[in-house]
Amino acid sequence: MKNFHYNVPTEIFFGKGAIKNLNNIAKYGKRILLVYGRDSIKKMGLYDEVVKILDQADTTYIELTNVEPNPRIESVREGVVLCREHDIDVVLAVGGGSVIDCAKVVAAGAVYDGDAWDLVLHPDKIVDALPVVTVLTLAATGSEMNGNAVISDLKTREKLGTGSDMLKPKFSIMDPEHTFTVSKGMTAAGIADIMSHTFENYFTPVKGAYVQARICESLLKACIYYGPLAIEEPDNYEARANLMWAGSLAINGICSLGQQTAWTVHPMEHELSAYYDITHGVGLAILTPPWMRYVLSDETVDKFVEYGVNVWGLDADGDPFDVANVAIDKTEAFLKSLGLPMKLSEVGIDRQYFEEMAKNCEERTQEGYVPLTYRDSIAIFEAAL
Amino acid sequence: MKNFHYNVPTEIFFGKGAIKNLNNIAKYGKRILLVYGRDSIKKMGLYDEVVKILDQADTTYIELTNVEPNPRIESVREGVVLCREHDIDVVLAVGGGSVIDCAKVVAAGAVYDGDAWDLVLHPDKIVDALPVVTVLTLAATGSEMNGNAVISDLKTREKLGTGSDMLKPKFSIMDPEHTFTVSKGMTAAGIADIMSHTFENYFTPVKGAYVQARICESLLKACIYYGPLAIEEPDNYEARANLMWAGSLAINGICSLGQQTAWTVHPMEHELSAYYDITHGVGLAILTPPWMRYVLSDETVDKFVEYGVNVWGLDADGDPFDVANVAIDKTEAFLKSLGLPMKLSEVGIDRQYFEEMAKNCEERTQEGYVPLTYRDSIAIFEAAL
Repeated sequence: MKNFHYNVPTEIFFGKGAIKNLNNIAKYGKRILLVYGRDSIKKMGLYDEVVKILDQADTTYIELTNVEPNPRIESVREGVVLCREHDIDVVLAVGGGSVIDCAKVVAAGAVYDGDAWDLVLHPDKIVDALPVVTVLTLAATGSEMNGNAVISDLKTREKLGTGSDMLKPKFSIMDPEHTFTVSKGMTAAGIADIMSHTFENYFTPVKGAYVQARICESLLKACIYYGPLAIEEPDNYEARANLMWAGSLAINGICSLGQQTAWTVHPMEHELSAYYDITHGVGLAILTPPWMRYVLSDETVDKFVEYGVNVWGLDADGDPFDVANVAIDKTEAFLKSLGLPMKLSEVGIDRQYFEEMAKNCEERTQEGYVPLTYRDSIAIFEAAL
Repeated sequence: MKNFHYNVPTEIFFGKGAIKNLNNIAKYGKRILLVYGRDSIKKMGLYDEVVKILDQADTTYIELTNVEPNPRIESVREGVVLCREHDIDVVLAVGGGSVIDCAKVVAAGAVYDGDAWDLVLHPDKIVDALPVVTVLTLAATGSEMNGNAVISDLKTREKLGTGSDMLKPKFSIMDPEHTFTVSKGMTAAGIADIMSHTFENYFTPVKGAYVQARICESLLKACIYYGPLAIEEPDNYEARANLMWAGSLAINGICSLGQQTAWTVHPMEHELSAYYDITHGVGLAILTPPWMRYVLSDETVDKFVEYGVNVWGLDADGDPFDVANVAIDKTEAFLKSLGLPMKLSEVGIDRQYFEEMAKNCEERTQEGYVPLTYRDSIAIFEAAL
């Protein structure tokens, strides 16, 4: 196990009716920027609930709306202007990971003397931020309980992650009922995202981070057990609750700290989303099985066997490569069973930009569990076609 | 899954050399009460390291020493007097759970206008406290990452738990190397303590807290895998590291929140320690298997099968009571293999106070996974003789 610094100050109010705790926001200030996407929070009645609580808490709010999936730097800049114009104290995100990520960089940009894109390119420039509070409506990114944010500039075809302790939400409201109306497709993409975060934390070269590895397996098992249930029965509270909590734990440090993690599938997927604006979780689902097959080797086979035995209940006996391949096949079949596209060609991506995208992310993939050159990434893209 | 509020603000600096982060203590004040037990931290050189860092951080310190295992209210009162006399800003515990628990109640007592025992009897009276910082030297109680404390008054034969968010340490230093010198017996008792915390959080009537249940199993597996290793090879870093981190996670909320937990073995053991001053973990090891056998029934057998299959790798097929009993037998054999006494008679306890002790804890055991009357507790004590 490697040395680590655990620092997860975000409070979580979890469960039915947890929204009532939103009134705690007044502790952080009276002037609020309310950030959300399109009209789904209005359709489900959550918008009205939020506004009522803000009113009762004697706060005032300004809105930043229409935040996109794969949130754009333009939305961030718009939010920064609103914060300055209206002397905002707190940024409140009501939505999924995209809305929360946008809100985080707005919160940092509001107190930064320069363009917010600097903060995406240079996370170390985030030395202060307005307090962030979230109301989560999608089990996926885990952004509600960490300091990370991913922002896109579609003009330059860049989708980049940034992060800082300053961006960790003060508190997050997590009511599984707020995810009942998430579509089957987005539910599946969210599950693929949670599983990918866990895989990136699980497949690491570090030996002996046993507790973390077992917890990763716990979260993967939760996704496998409850994923199909949430898709078949969108209002299955138990399924939605376990997926929601698994989503937070997959990427709040519990799984990664003490490991040596350097994600590779995520940087590759960020290229897909930056070039084609596809749903992040869909891109991850498509890339994960080919990535697993590509990195399977004499060096990594034991880890894949561990995965197969502990997560899929496979028998450890037999040729380890056979066990590993069955585990990978089962992963692919599971993601497919959720209704996810499993080929790049299914989402309108051909090989036109493979080389460009692979070169763009090479710097980040070279640190991975199995370091990947741009040629390796191209091979994985090809296998995913 | 039940509603929950997750709030774990304690920062953890984990790993080799983590002690260097102790200089962060100066953020919380310059006048420190240094709390420790007997001379073990001096023998291992940790005392000198701590004092050097405190000096370099331009802080001053006063000492509260000789804090006992099963820490006494008298030590707490002594600490409170020192805090007031010396205008202490921060309470620094260097030791295991007993030292930390004592430090916590000192921190609350220092700002409380009354006797500190009130704060043990009435946790709701803890509305403020000095900041607490810890340097952990024993993997066991998890006190380094939560707001709980257990204090004894041996005169009145009371050993009671208290707790408050105010008592959560600001940060804790967790260097597994600081546990290399822990004796085999205390290492084993610590493992029994960690496992008991996990059992108390695992055996609950709530359905559908799946993520939490799998994480409990992860921690139990870590204890089973690394426990014997830590006892055989006291300086096995990987073993000490995993046990140390498992100890924190067993009781920081990750396992319990969303469940319906009401501990029963702990209140029973607190009676043993209050009457006989035995090591807490030893008492837990002795009581756990008889408690398991006593509560095994048609209602609970499925949970014990789940435990046997997921933790001990038993085959789920066959008579569920057979599977459950094998799981319990394995638990008992494992604890015994660590060298722990497994009978009350081995630690000098006879049936003289069984009825008195059982009546003392009845109020608390009645809320448990399987509610226990004082007659039930007597039966378990008898089975543990």
